[in-house]
Amino acid sequence: MSIRIGILGYGNLGRGIECAVKQNDDVSLSAIFTRRDPSSVKILTDGAGVYSVNEIEVHKDEIDVMILCGGSATDLPEQTPEYVKYFNVVDSFDTHAKIPEHFSTVDAAAKASGHVGIISVGWDPGMFSLNRLYANAILTEGSDYTFWGKGVSQGHSDAIRRIDGVKDARQYTVPVEKALNSVRNGDNPNLSTREKHTRECYVVAEEGADLARIENEIKTMPNYFADYNTTVHFISEEELKAHHSGIPHGGSVIRTGITGWNGENKHVIEYSLKLDSNPEFTSSVLIAYARAAYRMNKEGQIGCKTVFDVAPAYLCAQSGEYLRKHLL
Amino acid sequence: MSIRIGILGYGNLGRGIECAVKQNDDVSLSAIFTRRDPSSVKILTDGAGVYSVNEIEVHKDEIDVMILCGGSATDLPEQTPEYVKYFNVVDSFDTHAKIPEHFSTVDAAAKASGHVGIISVGWDPGMFSLNRLYANAILTEGSDYTFWGKGVSQGHSDAIRRIDGVKDARQYTVPVEKALNSVRNGDNPNLSTREKHTRECYVVAEEGADLARIENEIKTMPNYFADYNTTVHFISEEELKAHHSGIPHGGSVIRTGITGWNGENKHVIEYSLKLDSNPEFTSSVLIAYARAAYRMNKEGQIGCKTVFDVAPAYLCAQSGEYLRKHLL
Repeated sequence: MSIRIGILGYGNLGRGIECAVKQNDDVSLSAIFTRRDPSSVKILTDGAGVYSVNEIEVHKDEIDVMILCGGSATDLPEQTPEYVKYFNVVDSFDTHAKIPEHFSTVDAAAKASGHVGIISVGWDPGMFSLNRLYANAILTEGSDYTFWGKGVSQGHSDAIRRIDGVKDARQYTVPVEKALNSVRNGDNPNLSTREKHTRECYVVAEEGADLARIENEIKTMPNYFADYNTTVHFISEEELKAHHSGIPHGGSVIRTGITGWNGENKHVIEYSLKLDSNPEFTSSVLIAYARAAYRMNKEGQIGCKTVFDVAPAYLCAQSGEYLRKHLL
Repeated sequence: MSIRIGILGYGNLGRGIECAVKQNDDVSLSAIFTRRDPSSVKILTDGAGVYSVNEIEVHKDEIDVMILCGGSATDLPEQTPEYVKYFNVVDSFDTHAKIPEHFSTVDAAAKASGHVGIISVGWDPGMFSLNRLYANAILTEGSDYTFWGKGVSQGHSDAIRRIDGVKDARQYTVPVEKALNSVRNGDNPNLSTREKHTRECYVVAEEGADLARIENEIKTMPNYFADYNTTVHFISEEELKAHHSGIPHGGSVIRTGITGWNGENKHVIEYSLKLDSNPEFTSSVLIAYARAAYRMNKEGQIGCKTVFDVAPAYLCAQSGEYLRKHLL
């Protein structure tokens, strides 16, 4: 019997989950729930239902784990504590500063209903967090560095699109090679925001728009661009479509530290990702943790969990015996 | 109250553990056990005892976790199941092919005595294994690659030292940059042994020894060197001491894989280590897992575990709340 997955929200992430289910034999897609009119949503999987989110509770006995694909700003703070009442759930809540608060509301609801809710699953938070933890557990004296990119930042692309005269835009976050190499060499540098990342913008302007003004508005935008070296390229709509339609991302988590009686030896631990599709990779992580949520709940565990609380073996379909033999 | 650590075996690894204890405030070194005459063993830590291994059981109530620093060939297969009778234990058993057998003897003894025994802890097996597992759980369709080095192989250095006319030697395992780059690019190459690593040997010959014969014996040695491109440098004893007395190591675990409805997107996950001191880094991993063994046993868990069975949060001294706030 496979683990029956439900998906709430059918955007890039929801579609990624659907693809990831196809790659994992021990899970199956039971249904997709949407806020749109279900008859307007065309999915890829034969045999899976498409229902309105308003009737989600009716399906509680058909789904082992519900994967919540809403946004972190307004959807997940409400959805995760709400739906953990009926299902084991996994979300990719990524507002780092609000994780403690989200954890405690989900934990209370999950404990009351007897379910497992795993929050903040993906790559950052998620795999990057895990690697920060492992590296900190090992090298207790050291420094942490996280570099993102080269990859598309949806938030920054949206910020550019809101500028008057901009038709479309794509923003890439790019780590500064020199800074990255200095960290990898164990130089332990103190790096400002500007020294760590640059921002590359590809902008389609409306006809007759004032390009100099747009460029200036981008480069001086507080929080988003003002603290970075930013380059702006005006391109045609066709070029944007041809060369910038993917959603790649990635980055590196690095910890450098010392050991020895007098701290005489240096070490560098690096975890890095190079992803063609940010949402599909995130989805693949979510499916592995959906498997874990199901198994942990089967064993009687309840409450809110993060990637820190999940023993790695729960993530793999294979037996402990197989994993020890082939991967240890 | 700190976690009281015992060390069995005071070689490079045992000394590394002693240093790692100093870097972790929540653990303390209770005693070191040795097969040598205890009065001949000088340690660095004030207040820790040095005892003969023959009286190890007498100290069972003074030690929360015993870290076993013996070798995998003959020591650990006997020591781990033996001492888990009296202590929670952690070892760094690294004979990959014999892990299933070791797991089952340790598991039986640990369950009978009510202790936790965590085996095969370090970086390979250990952190590399963990990264293989996480990457396989996420990218279920893909290929695994492990590269080692640049680093000192003790086994290969010893093999050279056994050759007639060799006074001392140091062997470095070096990953082939071209192969590494091809894997990182996602080319998914099929690589032979020779294509993945080269072997660099620094040899101190006895006076008057036949250097051509030594070089030939090294390069044609089955299993150790015959399948590799090997270079041999004859150097003086002083040069060996000055430039090759460290025990650096490292390497990379890489998994490449695909996602998407038709497998259209590629991803690369890489975990890499650059270590000045192999035994000290391994020791730092062992201390983190000693903490986990203590906590898991406190919670009532018993039996043999590997890194796959340990939820990451157990490894850190900090609370779950702290970890979620600062590392997630």
